[in-house]
Amino acid sequence: MKVYIEPIGKLINEFSKLPGVGAKTAQRFAYKVVNMNYDEAKAFADAIINVKNNVHYCKICGNFSEGDVCDVCKTRSSDTICVVKEPKDVVAIEKLNEFNGVYHVLHGTISPLDGIGPNDINIKELLNRISQGGVNEVIMATNPDVEGEATAMYISNLLKPLGIKVTRLAHGIPIGTDLEYADEVSLARAFIDRKAL
Amino acid sequence: MKVYIEPIGKLINEFSKLPGVGAKTAQRFAYKVVNMNYDEAKAFADAIINVKNNVHYCKICGNFSEGDVCDVCKTRSSDTICVVKEPKDVVAIEKLNEFNGVYHVLHGTISPLDGIGPNDINIKELLNRISQGGVNEVIMATNPDVEGEATAMYISNLLKPLGIKVTRLAHGIPIGTDLEYADEVSLARAFIDRKAL
Repeated sequence: MKVYIEPIGKLINEFSKLPGVGAKTAQRFAYKVVNMNYDEAKAFADAIINVKNNVHYCKICGNFSEGDVCDVCKTRSSDTICVVKEPKDVVAIEKLNEFNGVYHVLHGTISPLDGIGPNDINIKELLNRISQGGVNEVIMATNPDVEGEATAMYISNLLKPLGIKVTRLAHGIPIGTDLEYADEVSLARAFIDRKAL
Repeated sequence: MKVYIEPIGKLINEFSKLPGVGAKTAQRFAYKVVNMNYDEAKAFADAIINVKNNVHYCKICGNFSEGDVCDVCKTRSSDTICVVKEPKDVVAIEKLNEFNGVYHVLHGTISPLDGIGPNDINIKELLNRISQGGVNEVIMATNPDVEGEATAMYISNLLKPLGIKVTRLAHGIPIGTDLEYADEVSLARAFIDRKAL
């Protein structure tokens, strides 16, 4: 006999599709839903459908947006554009409350091994934005990995001839780390990029 | 400005209600849903609602069931009843393929500190089942903690005068453990309950 009744088995299967969720965790989630009252479960299901119906991509920056254009693009000065790989990177930067410019979400980074070339990510859209003028600086905030660095270099090479200032987030040892435990690459970069006091 | 647009924020909030899911994990889950196609998201939402609409409690054993009576109660001999705390305990035992009797789900254990007395869990229903006759053995498979032991003793004291054989799952050192690492209570129980070879 099957271990779960069908509705619970199906829900466990759905939860298993979430990242990092195995059979045991999916079962725990499903039992939590079984023990919710109807209104709570309805709110949960509605939130899922609602996300699919109401989340679009901003036609300017490519970030998630409820309308055609996102709130950031609507309300902020576009003279500084911060280029990121994914929407979640925007969230990480927004939480800092440090950056007041706008974003450009590439939705990927150049990765020849995975068959992702410059035309597969939103680089053309970035060039279009910049060609409309008013942009002083482009901050490359792609991840500090091989693909992120390559993408930053690629875009930088396209923009420099246009007279745009292109910057990259600083690398170095993280605040609060002991030198002893810092990884070698970051420590080496911290030496190269050392600053006058 | 708020970090998430409303539909995503709402979904993150819903995912955060799942056990062991923090803000970061909830965000990962929500982005996974955003990247699903509509049909996948619909299937997920439907599975949640479906569980609320189609999962009931078996009126005999108290386990989850699609109909009035669960498949186990419908198809198996009821001369041995295994008493467990929660539906997930039934799943754990069913996976063994060892037990061919029926279950009784208490939906809790006696816990005076939490204000849960014998009348707050399905003990009366168990006595009703047994009073209808045909039951030879009741296996107490509540957890080996204070509440589980107390509940097992309480039920055992009710059933013994009725001439029912009441058994308890064996305690002892788990298979595959080094004696050195076994907890003291289990090791002590293993001595007390030692068997002739």
